[in-house]
Amino acid sequence: MSNERKSLLVNVTNNSNYYNSIPTPIPLSVINNNEKNLMNIEQDKIEEDGFFQYMSTRHSRRQTKGLDTNDHFGVSMDDDMVEITTDARRDVSDLIDRSQGSKNLMDVPLVDDSTSRTHYDDFHTIDWLKDLNRDRFRHRIIQKRKKESVWQKIVTLHDSWSGWICVLLVGFSSGIVAAVVDIGTSWLSNIKDGICLNAFWLNKPQCCWASKNLTFDDYNNPKCPEWFSWPEVFNDWNDGFGEFLISYFFYTFWAVLFSVFAVLLVRVFAPYASGSGLPEIKTILSGFIIRGYLGKWTLLIKTVGMMLSTSSALILGKEGPFVHIACCCGNIFSYLFPKYGKNEAKKREILSAASAAGVAVAFGAPIGGVLFSLEEVSYYFPLKTMWRSFFCAMMGAFAVRMINPYGNGHDVQFSIDYKAPWSSFELIPFILLGILGGIWGACFIKFNIFWSRYRKTTALGRYPITEVVVVALITAIITFPNPYTRLSMTDLIKILVGQCKAEDESYLCNYRRNFTSANAKILPADAGPGVYKALWRLFMALIVQITLMMFTIGIKVPSGLLIPSMSIGAIAGRMAGIGVEQLAYHYPKFILFQNECSKADESCVTPGLYAIVGACAFLGGATKMTVSLVVIMFELTGGLTYIVPLMAAAVTAKWVGDAFGKGGIYDAQIELNGYPFLDNKEEFNYTTLASDVMTPRPGEPPLSVLTQEGMSLAEIEQVLKETSFTGYPVVVSRDSQHLVGYILRRDLQMAISQQRRNPRVSGRSMVYFNQTVPQNSTSSNAAMSLRFYKLLDLAPVTITDQTPMETVIDMFRKLGLRITLVTHNGRLLGIITKKDVLRHTYSMNNHESVFT
Amino acid sequence: MSNERKSLLVNVTNNSNYYNSIPTPIPLSVINNNEKNLMNIEQDKIEEDGFFQYMSTRHSRRQTKGLDTNDHFGVSMDDDMVEITTDARRDVSDLIDRSQGSKNLMDVPLVDDSTSRTHYDDFHTIDWLKDLNRDRFRHRIIQKRKKESVWQKIVTLHDSWSGWICVLLVGFSSGIVAAVVDIGTSWLSNIKDGICLNAFWLNKPQCCWASKNLTFDDYNNPKCPEWFSWPEVFNDWNDGFGEFLISYFFYTFWAVLFSVFAVLLVRVFAPYASGSGLPEIKTILSGFIIRGYLGKWTLLIKTVGMMLSTSSALILGKEGPFVHIACCCGNIFSYLFPKYGKNEAKKREILSAASAAGVAVAFGAPIGGVLFSLEEVSYYFPLKTMWRSFFCAMMGAFAVRMINPYGNGHDVQFSIDYKAPWSSFELIPFILLGILGGIWGACFIKFNIFWSRYRKTTALGRYPITEVVVVALITAIITFPNPYTRLSMTDLIKILVGQCKAEDESYLCNYRRNFTSANAKILPADAGPGVYKALWRLFMALIVQITLMMFTIGIKVPSGLLIPSMSIGAIAGRMAGIGVEQLAYHYPKFILFQNECSKADESCVTPGLYAIVGACAFLGGATKMTVSLVVIMFELTGGLTYIVPLMAAAVTAKWVGDAFGKGGIYDAQIELNGYPFLDNKEEFNYTTLASDVMTPRPGEPPLSVLTQEGMSLAEIEQVLKETSFTGYPVVVSRDSQHLVGYILRRDLQMAISQQRRNPRVSGRSMVYFNQTVPQNSTSSNAAMSLRFYKLLDLAPVTITDQTPMETVIDMFRKLGLRITLVTHNGRLLGIITKKDVLRHTYSMNNHESVFT
Repeated sequence: MSNERKSLLVNVTNNSNYYNSIPTPIPLSVINNNEKNLMNIEQDKIEEDGFFQYMSTRHSRRQTKGLDTNDHFGVSMDDDMVEITTDARRDVSDLIDRSQGSKNLMDVPLVDDSTSRTHYDDFHTIDWLKDLNRDRFRHRIIQKRKKESVWQKIVTLHDSWSGWICVLLVGFSSGIVAAVVDIGTSWLSNIKDGICLNAFWLNKPQCCWASKNLTFDDYNNPKCPEWFSWPEVFNDWNDGFGEFLISYFFYTFWAVLFSVFAVLLVRVFAPYASGSGLPEIKTILSGFIIRGYLGKWTLLIKTVGMMLSTSSALILGKEGPFVHIACCCGNIFSYLFPKYGKNEAKKREILSAASAAGVAVAFGAPIGGVLFSLEEVSYYFPLKTMWRSFFCAMMGAFAVRMINPYGNGHDVQFSIDYKAPWSSFELIPFILLGILGGIWGACFIKFNIFWSRYRKTTALGRYPITEVVVVALITAIITFPNPYTRLSMTDLIKILVGQCKAEDESYLCNYRRNFTSANAKILPADAGPGVYKALWRLFMALIVQITLMMFTIGIKVPSGLLIPSMSIGAIAGRMAGIGVEQLAYHYPKFILFQNECSKADESCVTPGLYAIVGACAFLGGATKMTVSLVVIMFELTGGLTYIVPLMAAAVTAKWVGDAFGKGGIYDAQIELNGYPFLDNKEEFNYTTLASDVMTPRPGEPPLSVLTQEGMSLAEIEQVLKETSFTGYPVVVSRDSQHLVGYILRRDLQMAISQQRRNPRVSGRSMVYFNQTVPQNSTSSNAAMSLRFYKLLDLAPVTITDQTPMETVIDMFRKLGLRITLVTHNGRLLGIITKKDVLRHTYSMNNHESVFT
Repeated sequence: MSNERKSLLVNVTNNSNYYNSIPTPIPLSVINNNEKNLMNIEQDKIEEDGFFQYMSTRHSRRQTKGLDTNDHFGVSMDDDMVEITTDARRDVSDLIDRSQGSKNLMDVPLVDDSTSRTHYDDFHTIDWLKDLNRDRFRHRIIQKRKKESVWQKIVTLHDSWSGWICVLLVGFSSGIVAAVVDIGTSWLSNIKDGICLNAFWLNKPQCCWASKNLTFDDYNNPKCPEWFSWPEVFNDWNDGFGEFLISYFFYTFWAVLFSVFAVLLVRVFAPYASGSGLPEIKTILSGFIIRGYLGKWTLLIKTVGMMLSTSSALILGKEGPFVHIACCCGNIFSYLFPKYGKNEAKKREILSAASAAGVAVAFGAPIGGVLFSLEEVSYYFPLKTMWRSFFCAMMGAFAVRMINPYGNGHDVQFSIDYKAPWSSFELIPFILLGILGGIWGACFIKFNIFWSRYRKTTALGRYPITEVVVVALITAIITFPNPYTRLSMTDLIKILVGQCKAEDESYLCNYRRNFTSANAKILPADAGPGVYKALWRLFMALIVQITLMMFTIGIKVPSGLLIPSMSIGAIAGRMAGIGVEQLAYHYPKFILFQNECSKADESCVTPGLYAIVGACAFLGGATKMTVSLVVIMFELTGGLTYIVPLMAAAVTAKWVGDAFGKGGIYDAQIELNGYPFLDNKEEFNYTTLASDVMTPRPGEPPLSVLTQEGMSLAEIEQVLKETSFTGYPVVVSRDSQHLVGYILRRDLQMAISQQRRNPRVSGRSMVYFNQTVPQNSTSSNAAMSLRFYKLLDLAPVTITDQTPMETVIDMFRKLGLRITLVTHNGRLLGIITKKDVLRHTYSMNNHESVFT
């Protein structure tokens, strides 16, 4: 019952959909109407915050007018004001106890139904301020009881450690899940190629581990006799067109099969498991409730589905979804600790830590994970959460390391073995890569959003399974012929960021070098024909991956975009690197290379570094991350030397990308899906005031409020029946409109239904919201009077009507408000909800942009 | 003129010092009364926030009572309320222009004196909300003008880039200053030992760089014929007691000379340059003004003084003060960009970035710097600032790298060349080191605070120069005989974190090993007599450093405690490491070592790693940093493999330290000095309400307020003369006390003094604060009426009297408030300033602690 209350009493006919009133081409609420979809905001259950209350306003409008005639209850409060001023210093409960003497008055206490998990319904906004205060209250009670017994001491100790224990469990479990997924993916991926006949449960690297006849083909692909490719399994064709066809067939077959399994699992068991989940997690962390989004079913299906979808040839990654998986773990484990499980604001601290662990296990980058959580995902991130996130991320990385799915003894996934310093002139290609990454990112975001919208608005959206099958089939058919696209993207990146060694004989390392010894320096050399062959195939791979990725991200399978972006960037970077290397070799006297490359040492140009920088730039272009990206990249590669190049690329990519449109892909998806996310990164730059945003708008009927005294129970029940707002302001009198407090519909309803069981309470019972009830009114009435003072929130956040909206937005963001009441000279004028703020920001940004 | 206004109308006799009213043994305001001291809060100029207004309350008390008799101006506002409600939607300026028609009314505009640098006086608190709104306003104007001309386009572009350019300059200049300090310190330090006769401007490593006869003594000290120690300079004594005496004398002589120079410079030119500056920078960043603390004089003196104090044998470091230096650069460069120079809230964004650069240049750790700024220093740290901090830190690190003061080609100061994995059992000694670090940190903090208080309250504080000389003399005499303490602390750490190599013949590496080749593995071996000799000296060094550091940190020279803490930790760690190594060697069958150390490879125990972990633990114990500390440590050493050990030590140290007392050394110093710092890390856990904290307290006279209409100019001038509050709430009438707005004393005074020049304005002129002036009142009066509507802050932050203090504190922290007004049912009850909040938190925490 967290519906924020608003008298949005507008005409139904011209407001049947909220977003219709804003001139925008985005049909934000038309998300797969025929599916059980996350944000199908036409559905009744999402009637939140007075946002979609058009169905009920018809009644409430009439009724509010009716209530307005009861204005004769107005009582001047100025007389007893002084008394309250001094009384306020005493404890409130004390005061209430004193007034209990009156036999004809029932002082109604606040009933907290601790049976319900949380205080919020699905698709509702949480109230950070109240939740945090609730936790402090709980904490105080535990602290007070501490001295009572030894058991209470243990309870206190458990309470203060539960946060750490919880993130420990979350980190560890995320690490284990990630390791399982890694192992499963690796095995399934290799199944497309062949099988280890002696031990079918081994993947190719494990199968070939102990082999004495391990060789590598022209594309660094390992080969060994123990591993049987499918043509070898079925007959002895070892060469020729037949072998190719059989391989092709099996590759396509498995790819499509895996993707069909993945999409079916998602469609049947857990629709929330599709996509990367990051936009939704950002929204959840900002204080939104999506039930089941982080549940055990989602966890299970996403884990299995991710193995399948990543193993099919689809151009998607599993690193983003790991964040979703870790958050599922966080949500599940938080129920072990009521401190977190029953308090949505506190739970979000665990979820912040969990998302750090997600990135930590995905990339083996604990610090990068913490920064990712801070920069990209989290909303409320106090220092205590940062420490816990760090701990959680460490535990995750530790768990992965223990299970060691990469099997290479390194903690870093794409570990590089070179430490050659970079030259200053190389900043030019690095920045160019950054520009390229920024442009690509902007294009990708724009196209992806266009395509997602197209999917939602056309028939395409009705056939998600068909879409997946078609995309998987096309992907498999296109990617198989090119050895670079046939590789898994992580393997491809590993090859691209590597340095050519003396013994390396793949196409990519086909330089005209004469080595005197195996330990000789890798000097710049003329590229051989193999390099050009590799370049051409890389170029094709680049085109294929860019094209396919646009259509793949958004289909209904678990899919992340981090690794595909990195892969595209690494290809572009490696190509650029080879280009610069050849330039430097052929024109050593050119002014840029003169000082750096004439020394003829290996430090001149390292193409692998360009691949790293390219990956960083393209990932930065898509996600607009900077600090966390650089940290992730250098934790991923272990290249502490290359912070400046990475940073140059990341910052350039962000700047260039921002020139085309603010926000990364996740922000774009949040906007596309119409999630109630109040971005704390963007500045609000307009001169509007609170009075321009508040409800009621000009010409609308006034707010439906309750008065402090003088309303009968029947009148209040009438208001409750005919409006569906989350809460009601209580004023001194209808005339003065001076604000007393705010009462939640939920509390009011529960209290009334409880009191109705008392025979002495009838519809004629008078209801009081004030601290001291006038003596005459309690005695004159036959029916028992009720006092709802304890239900009242006496400290609602209020602002004046002249408050600039930038301040209001600051308050909503920083304090995590759901509503604020607008006053003028102490009189209640209106109300602003989080949705009002979002709607206002949205309409302002779309009407006029100050940035263009 | 940022005095926050409060009617602290209490009796002068029992409130002559604010803290006297709180039962605390800390005489917070008795800081070196006889010196020109930073927080000598007895001084008149710090009469801020109604905090120390006891001098003026005598008058105001009488006067407020006098004003209270003017109650007949009360006008019921309920009638024109509806009109205002609807009018509020129109633009405010429009309304004002309409009412300009009245000839007898002067509508007074807000005069912004752009001549003054900022809007705040020294030792005042800034208003974040207002400052940020002011910047948004400025931004909007620039954006609006953009389309007018090409020049305006350039202005816009400059404006949007100025933040980046500013941090670029700040980062670069910090890097250059740091490099200069490093070079200077290195030279001065070596002067204590001897001189490079051929080229006196070279330090010892540079002097010996090209030497063919470079040797190392038993303590890894380099020796070469080009470098002349002082005995060699004066005669040919090459051995014996005479040489020792001459060396001893010169060492002591230079050490004392340097420290005398350092303290004299600080005392004479820039008292603010003493200490590390971090507590003050934390306070400044939290929104406090200390003029000159970040000025050019402080910068210059701190730079020179730091070289001198670090080069004297004193147990102090230069890494903490680098943050101060970088912030000075930040402050100075921000004046090039009015956007930052004239807006204190925006300037703090630059300062946050600068402190990141400070750590980055001190340790060569850009990411650690950003995290340090986030975790330890900054108060308001939006993502945009994080990106800029990162950029700034990068630029700083880049500048240092370009100048390369470490001269070793590495980017990392204590670079380690081993990558041996650590074993799980080693977590036990690592955690033990963490516990040790935590205990040491707690002891150090407690003793340091005790000693600082002793210095302040006794005669010792009157002789700062003598104190420095005595400490320097004792330090020099004690440290010279022990070769480990004679080394500079950075050199010592470098030796301690290193690994013994085959060719290493120092005492510390005197193991009984037989090497077959120079590349042989360094297996665990029996320690030789040299190791035990080294251990004994290290133990002595540990005792000496611990003891001396306690007395050194706090003397009036530029001094940091990061490197001394690390040095102590590294000694303890290395000793522990050797212990574990010998245990593992002698008892390889012991259950812990069984699985790990029986393989007889070099991965078993690396004593250098223990030194790193020890340094991390002890530094963590003193500062209570965690994430940033770990990142700094691994950027400092380059050991990406050792995150888990570092983290285990850091977190243990923090937990253990927190058990003895919350907060690090900087927080303790802030509390000791009584800075108005509202910690955003600590939780407030009490049940008090806003009404318990607000002014007026029970029994005190009511707030002195202004009424919306009905006050004459003379009356207002009277209020201004007899109270010295920062601002005054404006209410509808004295009877109703309904809040209209808040007016700053400064604005009111300026407007009045300007209007007084108008001959038609007299003391009888009526003053209006409302939007629409009643027609009769303007015409009936001979003197011209004044309307101060435009001076009014119509959107002061208000709370109700029932608001829990935890919410109030949240609002002060997160919104950066200076004051908030307390209302009840729309009526003004009182006011809460930041100082009220601080005082309340302080008194609650000291009266009863929920943690014990």
